[in-house]
Amino acid sequence: MVSRREFLQAVPIGALSLAAAAHPLALAAAPAPAEKPLAVEKIVALVGDDVPVRSMYLPQRLEAAIAGNAEVGDLYLHDGAVGALEKRFAELLGKEDAAFMPTGTMANQIAVRILCGDRRHLLLQKESHVYRDEEDATPVLSGINPVPIDGGTSEALVASVQAAFNQRSKDPYPMEVGAISLESPVRRLDGSTTALDTILRIADIAKKNGTGMHLDGARLLLMSGMEGFDPKTYAVPFDTVYVSLYKYLGAPFGAILAGDKARIDRARHVRHIFGGTIFRGYPAAALALHGLDHFGERFARVRAAGEALLAKLAGMPGIRIERVDRGSNIAIAILDAKVADGLRERARSADIVVGKPDNGRLHLTFNETLLRKPTATIAKVFAADGVG
Amino acid sequence: MVSRREFLQAVPIGALSLAAAAHPLALAAAPAPAEKPLAVEKIVALVGDDVPVRSMYLPQRLEAAIAGNAEVGDLYLHDGAVGALEKRFAELLGKEDAAFMPTGTMANQIAVRILCGDRRHLLLQKESHVYRDEEDATPVLSGINPVPIDGGTSEALVASVQAAFNQRSKDPYPMEVGAISLESPVRRLDGSTTALDTILRIADIAKKNGTGMHLDGARLLLMSGMEGFDPKTYAVPFDTVYVSLYKYLGAPFGAILAGDKARIDRARHVRHIFGGTIFRGYPAAALALHGLDHFGERFARVRAAGEALLAKLAGMPGIRIERVDRGSNIAIAILDAKVADGLRERARSADIVVGKPDNGRLHLTFNETLLRKPTATIAKVFAADGVG
Amino acid sequence: MVSRREFLQAVPIGALSLAAAAHPLALAAAPAPAEKPLAVEKIVALVGDDVPVRSMYLPQRLEAAIAGNAEVGDLYLHDGAVGALEKRFAELLGKEDAAFMPTGTMANQIAVRILCGDRRHLLLQKESHVYRDEEDATPVLSGINPVPIDGGTSEALVASVQAAFNQRSKDPYPMEVGAISLESPVRRLDGSTTALDTILRIADIAKKNGTGMHLDGARLLLMSGMEGFDPKTYAVPFDTVYVSLYKYLGAPFGAILAGDKARIDRARHVRHIFGGTIFRGYPAAALALHGLDHFGERFARVRAAGEALLAKLAGMPGIRIERVDRGSNIAIAILDAKVADGLRERARSADIVVGKPDNGRLHLTFNETLLRKPTATIAKVFAADGVG
Amino acid sequence: MVSRREFLQAVPIGALSLAAAAHPLALAAAPAPAEKPLAVEKIVALVGDDVPVRSMYLPQRLEAAIAGNAEVGDLYLHDGAVGALEKRFAELLGKEDAAFMPTGTMANQIAVRILCGDRRHLLLQKESHVYRDEEDATPVLSGINPVPIDGGTSEALVASVQAAFNQRSKDPYPMEVGAISLESPVRRLDGSTTALDTILRIADIAKKNGTGMHLDGARLLLMSGMEGFDPKTYAVPFDTVYVSLYKYLGAPFGAILAGDKARIDRARHVRHIFGGTIFRGYPAAALALHGLDHFGERFARVRAAGEALLAKLAGMPGIRIERVDRGSNIAIAILDAKVADGLRERARSADIVVGKPDNGRLHLTFNETLLRKPTATIAKVFAADGVG
Repeated sequence: MVSRREFLQAVPIGALSLAAAAHPLALAAAPAPAEKPLAVEKIVALVGDDVPVRSMYLPQRLEAAIAGNAEVGDLYLHDGAVGALEKRFAELLGKEDAAFMPTGTMANQIAVRILCGDRRHLLLQKESHVYRDEEDATPVLSGINPVPIDGGTSEALVASVQAAFNQRSKDPYPMEVGAISLESPVRRLDGSTTALDTILRIADIAKKNGTGMHLDGARLLLMSGMEGFDPKTYAVPFDTVYVSLYKYLGAPFGAILAGDKARIDRARHVRHIFGGTIFRGYPAAALALHGLDHFGERFARVRAAGEALLAKLAGMPGIRIERVDRGSNIAIAILDAKVADGLRERARSADIVVGKPDNGRLHLTFNETLLRKPTATIAKVFAADGVG
Repeated sequence: MVSRREFLQAVPIGALSLAAAAHPLALAAAPAPAEKPLAVEKIVALVGDDVPVRSMYLPQRLEAAIAGNAEVGDLYLHDGAVGALEKRFAELLGKEDAAFMPTGTMANQIAVRILCGDRRHLLLQKESHVYRDEEDATPVLSGINPVPIDGGTSEALVASVQAAFNQRSKDPYPMEVGAISLESPVRRLDGSTTALDTILRIADIAKKNGTGMHLDGARLLLMSGMEGFDPKTYAVPFDTVYVSLYKYLGAPFGAILAGDKARIDRARHVRHIFGGTIFRGYPAAALALHGLDHFGERFARVRAAGEALLAKLAGMPGIRIERVDRGSNIAIAILDAKVADGLRERARSADIVVGKPDNGRLHLTFNETLLRKPTATIAKVFAADGVG
Repeated sequence: MVSRREFLQAVPIGALSLAAAAHPLALAAAPAPAEKPLAVEKIVALVGDDVPVRSMYLPQRLEAAIAGNAEVGDLYLHDGAVGALEKRFAELLGKEDAAFMPTGTMANQIAVRILCGDRRHLLLQKESHVYRDEEDATPVLSGINPVPIDGGTSEALVASVQAAFNQRSKDPYPMEVGAISLESPVRRLDGSTTALDTILRIADIAKKNGTGMHLDGARLLLMSGMEGFDPKTYAVPFDTVYVSLYKYLGAPFGAILAGDKARIDRARHVRHIFGGTIFRGYPAAALALHGLDHFGERFARVRAAGEALLAKLAGMPGIRIERVDRGSNIAIAILDAKVADGLRERARSADIVVGKPDNGRLHLTFNETLLRKPTATIAKVFAADGVG
Repeated sequence: MVSRREFLQAVPIGALSLAAAAHPLALAAAPAPAEKPLAVEKIVALVGDDVPVRSMYLPQRLEAAIAGNAEVGDLYLHDGAVGALEKRFAELLGKEDAAFMPTGTMANQIAVRILCGDRRHLLLQKESHVYRDEEDATPVLSGINPVPIDGGTSEALVASVQAAFNQRSKDPYPMEVGAISLESPVRRLDGSTTALDTILRIADIAKKNGTGMHLDGARLLLMSGMEGFDPKTYAVPFDTVYVSLYKYLGAPFGAILAGDKARIDRARHVRHIFGGTIFRGYPAAALALHGLDHFGERFARVRAAGEALLAKLAGMPGIRIERVDRGSNIAIAILDAKVADGLRERARSADIVVGKPDNGRLHLTFNETLLRKPTATIAKVFAADGVG
């Protein structure tokens, strides 16, 4: 288990270090610094996928989300805001049904378990969350072999998938591949996404072999604004799709798993077996519903603002921009020492939070706080002299 | 999966039917009836273990529970209100550590999994939640054989446990019993509890065989006020103890699993594998902490009030009281037809909610709402003429 | 694991103690006694289901069974004697296909695993081998809940099965019963069998619920000669049927699992997963084929001889015969002390082997050695004076 | 499942095609060819690890192996030849105990299951039998994640193992590696072996992490005669070691798993759970004991004869020899067309069996039949003109 100490190392909490490399912004949980508190409500945070908020303000946020709706409550995840959220996501993703899940790990695990059935051979990207970050739950709880494949988010994935099918079919005891799980965007690849065309070619192979397709789309909606992206279209090749409720939609926890009626019915059963049928999920569901309102439109604007900022930075001395392949909301700025020195302090005094450069490489992550200040204001703190 | 329709049948929602036989009061999720709304805040509900509240009032309840505490937030169940709750329960139950779990099912399943290890033979009461209500999760996820034993909550349990050990040791391939899971109070036995002395004798057998002991104490604190009951003493014979956060403590969901340091560390790992590491648990933890304040004292008063009511009812014509063996907060009133007729309507007009008699047998469940009205007032509605 | 010491206690090896209560006759493995060796080849053994033979004579027995057949060999259980045996059993049991298995435990475990699929609720007799003697393999390897039911081999089984279905369907999370496994004859019930009519009524319930039916017929062919018994007819209600190859057919080990084409195909896969695909099975298959020739006819004669012996014994002083319900090849003789005293010695000097009476109760097990001597000769040793 | 048809394709059975690429020589199971039968007893087979024998001669071989030993029989794998074989292998491998297993797959699966316990992360070579040829049994039956690593049999294995440990320890939920399984010689790498020094460095990493070490030494004794090889020394770094009984020792099936007392005790339990406790294993054990007599010495001579043959061939026109890294009993001859043409026919008429060249590459596998003819005689058939 990740110890408290390790957490604090990964997520140094203090006025100037809002960033959690691998985790959403930890600010909300941070003690207010002694000197001068950050005005969390107005900062631009170039770290994290979500808008940082203080935990103690949860009641007010819930008040706004519930808005006097007497029917908000659910009972063991039936009806209320949970039912409404499930319905809304089913529509958004173009699936027959959707089920609330307490975590993305459970959503992923249940999806691949159902898709595999007795064909316990699962192909997945070797950088994927299911392979790396779910503590071997796939084999441990479901007896499924998670077979890591190369290719990341690129077109090379198609060949890797095909090779895995070919290899097995030549073995004396040929394994049937029960499911392919694809993550997009991939967190461990800086939010890189897989092109729909690539996915469609993999889905073709899957279809020929009666293999199920699962999308770990935890951060799927961060693709909003990418050219040609539409959640429903992107979800078509997949039998099941998971989307996170807390990474950028504002819920304290939770996930959605969408698919056809029969599979989602079964998923609710398996959710119970996994101990996932919490008594009331409406606090999370109500906030996610609230966050979902116009999210796609807002995030398309975030994307545009991000592009503008990157263009601006690219033209500044001592800064080079490195783009992520088919990137969603992350880019890397490569900074000369004279730019990097004092950057975090300059930013902070302008209510802007940046991460910590690693050998001059600084990850810039765009979220809705980017819309709080003009591009020029943000770019200015990247000028070595703070003037730009 | 329990369908919505089945739920509504079990939990007929309307002004006069607040009761959920098997589930906590469904009132909060109910639409306000057209005619004349129940004043939920002042009713006495002789159904359910908890105080019914309207879901839409959650923000206000959270506001009171958080009380401006800037450090209430947790991160993946670390620190904040979650950490505080874990510490408080560890103390209450006299264990080294405790871990927040999203559900009681997960708490139970993780506990027996850890206790059993490779010795996959688990003894449990055949009426227990682990055996009947967790959808075979024990074998399905953990490969453990849940062996049902007779005896309910009585002293006969000791002989059943001993017989199970004897039987296996005579087999050609003797099984080692990895764990014994006892539920107390037992929901399917109307809240009947097992005497500490009986538990101690079972723990003796367990100890001799290196067998772990788990308490499904979902409703443990409902024993508050029973003679000689003290949570810490009752927990001593058990290696792990689960207590619910939502059945009577006011949280929207959640559970606690307490035990020694090593086992609870391991439990946090397994929680992650099960998909139970929700992003933020503090909304539930903060409310549970709030509900826990002085809970034991309040429920001892509930118990006394219940005893007074039962004594009063026992003396009334057409009513016979049947006690549950070592009962916690439930008793059965056996009613003549002339008492039963119109009882629910008489009660309702006095802001009292009673269940639906089944062949004259009416379950009376005591919770904190019992303290809202004098015993005499409540008893009066049980009088055939409504005068008492 | 059963230790060597425990084995030797259960199977006291020596000239006068051929009997293995729970196991087939251990004689073959016994050292020749110092005094006067038993002429194993001509004894009548009223213990064990099979004909005892000395292990060192295996080559001669194989020679007779192979009989110069150049195509006897198999390769990983394909073709040769294994293929021939599978074909023969498929015909005998009226199924499409049959697969050789190294053990009955594996045959049972694979059958219930395939029948259950994802519906991991298995009903079985609480005295059955699958429940008691396979070291919890059902949950441990296949995550299936083996639910013990009452009724043994009697008509009461029907009600138990129905009750199990009813109970689950009323639970909030109704379990689907994936399979029913019935053992007949039941070793732990002295070879008692279940009537075909009872089985048909259970199969009706199963069919209505889409539940699979498995027969643990390890000793099925010992029913040969029972009124109306025919293996094919008896197998009809079952989807899968296991029959032992070593308990009475003379193979050193092995089992057959029969069923339809798809299930047996799948069973061969799962056999490989379980590590059951031995390189060559023909030594066992060839001997089983040999033993199978005219087995039914021979055992019908054993049965008749057994009946004659029981009738004779029942008329003798100091002996009472207790029949097993729908018994196959076992009956119990209740002996006065004067009959029991010296019985084993009297028997032995007439080359007859009997078990050890337990409080005057002596199990008489009939096998093909019964045909070696006239009924009167055998009965005589039961006379208190050895004259009869 | 491998179908009969597929088998026949892989193992074309006929006078000139004795070779089974991946399987031991299929000759014994082959129908005698119409034209002129091969004198199996005197051929030199440059294919397969074992000495081909006709299946129908099994009785004679058993007669020689049992040699009138009255105590050869075992009972459920206790005592008799099975006990003797277990003892002999324990000594040979320098371990406290050893258990007979029906198959190598079961031996491997049980070993890694026991070594892993609850730490379900297993490192193994991506070309290994456990990873490729056991139909995902590791996750399917034991919930263990089989993590494929690169490096084959080379020193690069050390870095791969270290990298796997490093990667996991940096993850938020660090996995503990329960076991490392190494195969040597590796069948899918033409019998290449891992140097003891490499193994010792891996064992060092394992020890530091409390990780178990398993050797899939199915073909371990084929290393006899390699410089410095000694089974006991090679086995030292491993907690458990599996050796096959049928690949070159002449048993019809079976495997040995050796290790310390506690683990092998446990392995016998798990063997029962897997359905591996066959009734009598002595037919296999007796033949393996027989084959084991002086095996090491004989195979050292095979190795020397192989080296002599390779030296001879290397000096012949149109032949190039490619050695396998740290090869055991396989080398590759790269043949000019004029050598390859008619080679199999020339060989056959000299009672020598060779495989089928693949694009001029011919695998030469050495087994005990190599000692039947002088090197020069064998080499001669490789001469393009058959004169050499």
